[in-house]
Amino acid sequence: MIGASSIRKEGRAKVLGTACYTDDKFMPDALHGVTVRSQVPRGILRGIHFGEGIPWADFTVVTAADIPGKNLVASVVHDQPFLVGIGEEITHAEQPVVLLAHPDRFLAEKARAAVQLEVEERPAILDIQASLDLEQVIYGTHNLLKEIRIQKGDPATVWAQAAHVFEGEYHTGAQEQMYLEPNAMVAMVERAGEETRVTVWGSLQCPYYVHSALKQLFGLPEDKVRVVAMEMGGAFGGKEDYPSVNGGHAALLAWKSGRPVKLIYDREEDLACTTKRHPSRTRLKTAFDAEGHLLAVEADFVLDGGAYATMSPVVLSRGALHVAGVYRCPHVKVHARAVATNTPPPGAFRGFGAPQSLFALERHLDICARKLGLDAVDLRRKNFLRMGDTMATGQVIREDLDLGGIMDRALEEVGYRAKRKAFAASNQVAGPIKRGVGFAVFMHGCGFTGGGETYLASVAGVEGLADGTVSVLAASTEMGQGKNTVFSQIVAEALKLPFEMVDVAQVDTDRVPNSGPTVASRSTMMVGRILEDAAIGFKQSLVQQGFLREPYTADTFRAAVQKAVATLGSVKCYGQYHRPPNITWDDATYQGDAYPTFSWACYAAEVAVDLDTYEVKVEDFIAVQEVGRVVNPMLAEGQIEGGVAQGIGWGLWEEVTTQRGRMLNNQMTNYIIPTSADLPRIKVVFLENAHPAGPGGAKGIGELPMDGPAPALLNALENALGALRLDEVPMTPERLLARCEEVSHG
Amino acid sequence: MIGASSIRKEGRAKVLGTACYTDDKFMPDALHGVTVRSQVPRGILRGIHFGEGIPWADFTVVTAADIPGKNLVASVVHDQPFLVGIGEEITHAEQPVVLLAHPDRFLAEKARAAVQLEVEERPAILDIQASLDLEQVIYGTHNLLKEIRIQKGDPATVWAQAAHVFEGEYHTGAQEQMYLEPNAMVAMVERAGEETRVTVWGSLQCPYYVHSALKQLFGLPEDKVRVVAMEMGGAFGGKEDYPSVNGGHAALLAWKSGRPVKLIYDREEDLACTTKRHPSRTRLKTAFDAEGHLLAVEADFVLDGGAYATMSPVVLSRGALHVAGVYRCPHVKVHARAVATNTPPPGAFRGFGAPQSLFALERHLDICARKLGLDAVDLRRKNFLRMGDTMATGQVIREDLDLGGIMDRALEEVGYRAKRKAFAASNQVAGPIKRGVGFAVFMHGCGFTGGGETYLASVAGVEGLADGTVSVLAASTEMGQGKNTVFSQIVAEALKLPFEMVDVAQVDTDRVPNSGPTVASRSTMMVGRILEDAAIGFKQSLVQQGFLREPYTADTFRAAVQKAVATLGSVKCYGQYHRPPNITWDDATYQGDAYPTFSWACYAAEVAVDLDTYEVKVEDFIAVQEVGRVVNPMLAEGQIEGGVAQGIGWGLWEEVTTQRGRMLNNQMTNYIIPTSADLPRIKVVFLENAHPAGPGGAKGIGELPMDGPAPALLNALENALGALRLDEVPMTPERLLARCEEVSHG
Repeated sequence: MIGASSIRKEGRAKVLGTACYTDDKFMPDALHGVTVRSQVPRGILRGIHFGEGIPWADFTVVTAADIPGKNLVASVVHDQPFLVGIGEEITHAEQPVVLLAHPDRFLAEKARAAVQLEVEERPAILDIQASLDLEQVIYGTHNLLKEIRIQKGDPATVWAQAAHVFEGEYHTGAQEQMYLEPNAMVAMVERAGEETRVTVWGSLQCPYYVHSALKQLFGLPEDKVRVVAMEMGGAFGGKEDYPSVNGGHAALLAWKSGRPVKLIYDREEDLACTTKRHPSRTRLKTAFDAEGHLLAVEADFVLDGGAYATMSPVVLSRGALHVAGVYRCPHVKVHARAVATNTPPPGAFRGFGAPQSLFALERHLDICARKLGLDAVDLRRKNFLRMGDTMATGQVIREDLDLGGIMDRALEEVGYRAKRKAFAASNQVAGPIKRGVGFAVFMHGCGFTGGGETYLASVAGVEGLADGTVSVLAASTEMGQGKNTVFSQIVAEALKLPFEMVDVAQVDTDRVPNSGPTVASRSTMMVGRILEDAAIGFKQSLVQQGFLREPYTADTFRAAVQKAVATLGSVKCYGQYHRPPNITWDDATYQGDAYPTFSWACYAAEVAVDLDTYEVKVEDFIAVQEVGRVVNPMLAEGQIEGGVAQGIGWGLWEEVTTQRGRMLNNQMTNYIIPTSADLPRIKVVFLENAHPAGPGGAKGIGELPMDGPAPALLNALENALGALRLDEVPMTPERLLARCEEVSHG
Repeated sequence: MIGASSIRKEGRAKVLGTACYTDDKFMPDALHGVTVRSQVPRGILRGIHFGEGIPWADFTVVTAADIPGKNLVASVVHDQPFLVGIGEEITHAEQPVVLLAHPDRFLAEKARAAVQLEVEERPAILDIQASLDLEQVIYGTHNLLKEIRIQKGDPATVWAQAAHVFEGEYHTGAQEQMYLEPNAMVAMVERAGEETRVTVWGSLQCPYYVHSALKQLFGLPEDKVRVVAMEMGGAFGGKEDYPSVNGGHAALLAWKSGRPVKLIYDREEDLACTTKRHPSRTRLKTAFDAEGHLLAVEADFVLDGGAYATMSPVVLSRGALHVAGVYRCPHVKVHARAVATNTPPPGAFRGFGAPQSLFALERHLDICARKLGLDAVDLRRKNFLRMGDTMATGQVIREDLDLGGIMDRALEEVGYRAKRKAFAASNQVAGPIKRGVGFAVFMHGCGFTGGGETYLASVAGVEGLADGTVSVLAASTEMGQGKNTVFSQIVAEALKLPFEMVDVAQVDTDRVPNSGPTVASRSTMMVGRILEDAAIGFKQSLVQQGFLREPYTADTFRAAVQKAVATLGSVKCYGQYHRPPNITWDDATYQGDAYPTFSWACYAAEVAVDLDTYEVKVEDFIAVQEVGRVVNPMLAEGQIEGGVAQGIGWGLWEEVTTQRGRMLNNQMTNYIIPTSADLPRIKVVFLENAHPAGPGGAKGIGELPMDGPAPALLNALENALGALRLDEVPMTPERLLARCEEVSHG
């Protein structure tokens, strides 16, 4: 079962159009909600005026003053209000101030435009540098949402004696997740006597995050809040933290109106207001000995965290933990900061900080190789981590890690040596097209940090149904990544049942235990492993209670489950994560095992640049990775292909243009993502190396492919064009033109 | 809880004398059984004669002709009859032929002596060499009970070019387990109509082994056989396989008589007839480069397996898998054979083959160091396995293994350098006392091989009791090693309950699932880990079914269990072993992960030899080991101390003397084991390094301390006396005298 390309459990319903997305939920009598936003990046809200020509009496209107519980979104830090109240500070230009609901969604839109906010404006901070310079203090005392330091050895002792020291600064831009289905919520509040019960159905990754947020918003106990995940049209992190905000908004409108409320964003609102990838600036200083051995890395890693903390502390953490990459280095010092700006807060996005810091490092190493007069391949090979080596946090590599083998496979697949030679010759010939080939080697930590998984203590279960089939109970959501299918495969494998006999229960906090959020490349590896235990316990319960005899067939198993359910009413078995005893993590010192393990990869890209238009065409792309065992090769390939596409978009085209802290290009016509027409062949190669912590040996896979494309592409660009200041993504044609002009003028 | 020296669960009952051992089981109307044995090592049984003066009509008499099912003991190989029948071959001198039972145990003893066996004698094979030389063919076609080959690289390619090649041959003798309580069984057979149900209570390590043997002996289904483990007075492997034999005998007498039967061996019968440690001969050939790096090891490892296979195939396997010790070596070839002889079959004994092969290797390396002119410490340090290295079977070391650190700690504790110098001086002085200090470095594989544990697929569980406490359900037996206590600690830790709220259910095949045999240093690590899962599943069931709310206290937990049991009748949760995906083992090629992990150790000994009497006094003993995390330091220290004592006995004093295949010194007066008066201080040091495969990080510990003392002592003896042929254990005064005379005469 594990290793089979089983067909998606929800595929048929999606293809036939019968899958029920949030906006498909039929709610008789439902109102349509809209959100009135601040429009100025910083100021004090002084008044709210309801303009003429709108039948306000027919509207449900919610302001901060209506909130029954706490007006703060439960997240890593409780700093973001659901709605800004009068006299309170507006901190970004898309901040929700008033919620409106009406049976007529067109009238609701008209009403939204008729609400005028009276704001006393204040000077805003709109970029990293202004925030670091404390031009204004907009958050805490130093505009810091989070600060992390990691130290191993002391780079300061190295600089003077090292044969070579190189410095560089690298920038990455914001990026939109661009899921097919914008954020959407449906809420209903039931009242019976003193009792209030809030239910939210939505497009959301983490039902228990929304559950926590609603409990705090309404001041309700655990069992009075219910969150249900509907079929989801993609997420990529964009529905990790934001659903706590819009879920709360929908529920507030339902609570005030007493009727069901649909709060469905259109594309423009979604692009303008919801979370994006954090822009970053990374300064790197590295020392090498005469042979090219890496002696020291010092990194100053800064993220633009926007107006509130949201996920920034953890995004910063992952970025900082990946900054030294896949290299052995005795002296590492990392200073990482997420700074506040008056912009809509970014949040989770596939990769979660790692693409930013890995881009900087892999780009930097290519530049170092050039300056050292070494081949980029040789420089990396000299410095790769191997089993027994220690990473920056003191984590020891305990796997048979063969980065050289991974790199060699990628270079072989792309024809690296031959192409380097051929392009060197062909690029000499006159004509606008210059070609290059480049690569990047990188890793991605699977799951949360040791401490994070221990804190979550995730639970998942297996239930026998009256028809004799088996259902998976977990809060992990299906967002297109294939969770339904992979979980079914894992449980079917553990129970030695056909795939068809296992399905996944709808994610509903009334029914499924908290298996943790669906993020951080953790579902297959961390939740899947718990499900293995639960499945084996489930089978053992049947055996020990006399319902099942081993060996069994699918038919005798089905009969046993039927009999057990008929006799006992219900048969369930649960497993829970418990920390492996050799995984330690100290959040205070950032020492220990940052992640249970890593997935490892080398991606190689071939590009052609047209020096007439400065357009870059990706002509070939190779993705070689070691991800433990592959549970479902078809889905895994799809994950890699999608991630590579997203990585290419981030590296070359996807640019968020802003004005006074508001996104200007919040349409799919001017925010450019790659379509299949823009993409090359993507060849995906899995090198399997079963890992004991994952089910059947699987590691995480979801985020990894986001990390490699950008540095591989810019390394290929440098190969095509020679030394240029290729230190930023997206490397749009405009930016590339400017960089080329620097050389010709400078 | 894990890491606490909790008090033994069964300690109070043992100390007060209320613990119920097998012979304490009150069975009204019970008969006493005795066994008539062959007395000649080889021959054909031609007749059985019942002598005069015995009221035979009052006796229950069982011969092979009475056996209702199959007259073969279910074991690794089904080759041993419960009783030899007329016309069949007798293959050793203690072979059971007739069983007698009578209410008067003294009369039963008298009757035993009155049975005369008519045997047509055949020439017997009584030692390894005669068996290898095929002086007689007594088993199969080549007297081979089992043959194993392991190969890595090819030593044949090394010998010619190596700077140094050394050969040696090493011998080890038999050893008696000398548990306090001899083997003992009580049986009862109930008949109701067509139905027969067999129950055996006994002093036994592996209830499900006995269960299998009884099923086959009586031809009964699973649920008609019940085996209960009583309080046990030690075992050390001596009650692993033999209880299938005497359990069958007791049950046969009960079946024939229709009354309960007690079959309790006295010390003489137990020593003469039951299993012992396998005698061994190991030939080693090693090659080194000029700097002392180990280039090749070739081993010819032979065990004397006695008349039937019993555990010999697996003992041989473990011996073969330990023969290359803790050293990195590119070329290894092992040829291992267990040969048949006409002696009572040896069986399991703490260490299980590893003490034999490790003795040979560690002794050999000390001799190699001398011949190389290298310090024994330096030679070992040059060659130690480290993380990432590959063992003979291709197993890769994935732990932070620091054998140098373990060795250094042992040498420091014993004062190695200073004592070597001081003794070198003092040994020059005239007088009979010569002193020396020596050490050995070694490991012990924890649990069964990857394939073995997968085949077992052990199950263990946790049950809630009506009083709200929790009971551990496992077939693992308490034989003094502390299983009751350690399992309770593991479950209490997993459930965060006080130790007092957890206890262990009596081991009864009607009540506990098959958690595998209590052998191979596997209970804490393998079964304990399953219990962790079962405990967590148990708690989750309570939470998910609404009986328990987290966080809980001991009191709210107790109340929840009480309510759950009152509501549901019974609450249990089970876990099962499943193979970690990075553990592979191929039994056909002997390639893969021989064991889930190893415990590692260095033991150092100081000895004083009196050259007047050739007595060796052990003056100091240091045992430093890395065993993962220590669950219960007090019990763990006890295990190490006991194992060291047993290892010292094996190394210096314990000699099984035989005549025509029968043990001559089968009394505690002339089979000499060390008493506390003979033992030095034993300093036990644990270096902890949590291992993910064990509960709370624990690895196995039971057998390890048996492996190190013998080579450490003989290495110390060589330091005291200079180059001598110290190639055999036990190195009794007589043998040492002979070795010293070789030098003075030769």
